[in-house]
Amino acid sequence: MSEPFAFRLLKSDGAARRGEIVTPHGAVQTPAFMPVGTQGTVKGLMPEAVAATGAEIVLGNTYHLMLRPGAERIAALGGLHKFMNWPLPILTDSGGFQVMSLSALRRLEEHGVTFRSHLDGAMVELSPERAIEIQALLGADIAMQLDECIGLPATLEEITRAMQLSLRWAERSKRAFKGRARDGYALFGIVQGGDNPALRAESARALIDIGFDGYAIGGLAVGEPQDVMLKIVAETTPILPADRPRYLMGVGTPDDLMAAVARGIDMFDCVLPTRNGRHGMAFTRHGAINLGNARHATDARPLDEQSTHPAARIYSRAYLHHLTKANEMLGQVLLSTINLAYYQTLMAGMREAIASERFADFQAATKAQWAQGDIVTM
Amino acid sequence: MSEPFAFRLLKSDGAARRGEIVTPHGAVQTPAFMPVGTQGTVKGLMPEAVAATGAEIVLGNTYHLMLRPGAERIAALGGLHKFMNWPLPILTDSGGFQVMSLSALRRLEEHGVTFRSHLDGAMVELSPERAIEIQALLGADIAMQLDECIGLPATLEEITRAMQLSLRWAERSKRAFKGRARDGYALFGIVQGGDNPALRAESARALIDIGFDGYAIGGLAVGEPQDVMLKIVAETTPILPADRPRYLMGVGTPDDLMAAVARGIDMFDCVLPTRNGRHGMAFTRHGAINLGNARHATDARPLDEQSTHPAARIYSRAYLHHLTKANEMLGQVLLSTINLAYYQTLMAGMREAIASERFADFQAATKAQWAQGDIVTM
Repeated sequence: MSEPFAFRLLKSDGAARRGEIVTPHGAVQTPAFMPVGTQGTVKGLMPEAVAATGAEIVLGNTYHLMLRPGAERIAALGGLHKFMNWPLPILTDSGGFQVMSLSALRRLEEHGVTFRSHLDGAMVELSPERAIEIQALLGADIAMQLDECIGLPATLEEITRAMQLSLRWAERSKRAFKGRARDGYALFGIVQGGDNPALRAESARALIDIGFDGYAIGGLAVGEPQDVMLKIVAETTPILPADRPRYLMGVGTPDDLMAAVARGIDMFDCVLPTRNGRHGMAFTRHGAINLGNARHATDARPLDEQSTHPAARIYSRAYLHHLTKANEMLGQVLLSTINLAYYQTLMAGMREAIASERFADFQAATKAQWAQGDIVTM
Repeated sequence: MSEPFAFRLLKSDGAARRGEIVTPHGAVQTPAFMPVGTQGTVKGLMPEAVAATGAEIVLGNTYHLMLRPGAERIAALGGLHKFMNWPLPILTDSGGFQVMSLSALRRLEEHGVTFRSHLDGAMVELSPERAIEIQALLGADIAMQLDECIGLPATLEEITRAMQLSLRWAERSKRAFKGRARDGYALFGIVQGGDNPALRAESARALIDIGFDGYAIGGLAVGEPQDVMLKIVAETTPILPADRPRYLMGVGTPDDLMAAVARGIDMFDCVLPTRNGRHGMAFTRHGAINLGNARHATDARPLDEQSTHPAARIYSRAYLHHLTKANEMLGQVLLSTINLAYYQTLMAGMREAIASERFADFQAATKAQWAQGDIVTM
């Protein structure tokens, strides 16, 4: 029998929390950042390279994997951990967000959502029950309820309707999960309610009544300004139970992560470090650096001589510039690696700062270093 | 002072040779296969991953690197070894082959070749002297003379003209190399003469008179059948000095490599393992396998459970199929890695077989295993 799913709150510093999540595939120190492995791979990186950046958990996408290669096929091959050779914890999203953003011709009904696959045009149905089934077939340590995620801005009526549908789906998700739950595997509910604090509070309280292993805040980073996002986070986290992990979905920039941790968030996922890395952008202690810029062409300095990761210490900016200009795969691989390593270093720094009750100082010092910028030595 | 360049012939088995090349950046066991690092990177692979396949030397392309980022720039950044973080030996080609195959609007003259860059349309000149200068700026352990490489079939007149021009360029290359040679760095001459044995012999003898550290056979694998290529190899190698390494340029398939080693070749380079890997093809003990084929979709077996490389033992064919169909970068990375590892395993097998005087048996057994094919267990 696996160790049951658990969250231990180790320390608080203001609203910021230092904790540990225990799953059947190991522990995750929080605040945690989860690299995104959309199609059963963190793009371009061997799993051991992902682990070497410091990642302890990755995210898999239900929408992509259900369409290709299919959840039943992955289950027959031993589950997603084995399929992608990632022995550590995996969280899977429910597919709801991608159904809305990627598929054409979707029909939303009480029972679920029917959509046309972006791969082969086939009509596919996803219900709360099927989303749970798929995530169980994948073997996710942490599964997410199916929700309806809408963009912002939206009308109050539309936000209310989607939030209430998501709540009814939350209840069905919980029932389906209990029906097939294996020991130690977890299900998170997702708070919806757009940019409306009252609807967010209503959603959070109703989810707590249903009871989940953790609580996500969904439907943010969908077009609204950062201050709106942070306001919703700040007003939602105090409602959520202190003894459950809190996950802000699809967020964000390094600055977003620090600001959200300051407001009580424990977990994040985002494509930024890998997607921007594939387009020549590095995230570093000195802020974001665009390697495609000609000023790097003769710069022999590494991106960050103090990085925890050799890739950021060894390769010159001139080499990374060359690989970017030449559109070489290794440039995408190196910058994805360097960015994930920086994100993990940032998370580790936050964890350490919370543990020693100096999170505010850490946040200020980190922002000052970003603002100082990428000074070129002569 | 570096150890001088040296070739030690350790053992012969028929015409097949087991040897060792010593360069300023370390020793290379022969027969050796050199992965191709065209633009300062073996596509998609960290240099430590290239070394982990067993490679002891890589090839860099003068043509690509002179155009981007430029030889002078790489020299200012500490040379190609440092630029690409590859501490082991590097051989650079002279650029002649790519000028012919990649650039439009080239003008061939006695002095050299002027061509339009495929990158920015600039007119660029490459002479034997400049090719030597570029390779010295890159810091190549082994440099190649500039030659004129023509396609086959070609008229006797055309083959003769190109061979004689290449000889005059060989002489100028040698002179330029002596003028700037650093201790231990080597220059190879290139035998030309198309598919004509008499011209090949004339070319080889004239090169030996000039005197090089090693001898390449160029202008093959340019459209002629394998038996024509092997006949030229078999008739050329006996003319070449036994105490110098012999390099068959741009070759080839695993079968080509074995057949050429059987005819006295010590060194190879080819894009096949990486290029075909990027297109979903694996080279294995069981022959070539197209991972894009639907029959692999549910196959839980690894590509080769006996491989020396974990990537070939760990990942299922179903996963590699999935990555190939999803056009995921990791599929290209894994198959490039697996293919390079197979090529190195094949070379190591040949070296061991020659050392124990059973090369013919090894060749027959290897071919039998390829022919047996990729049997699917039920």
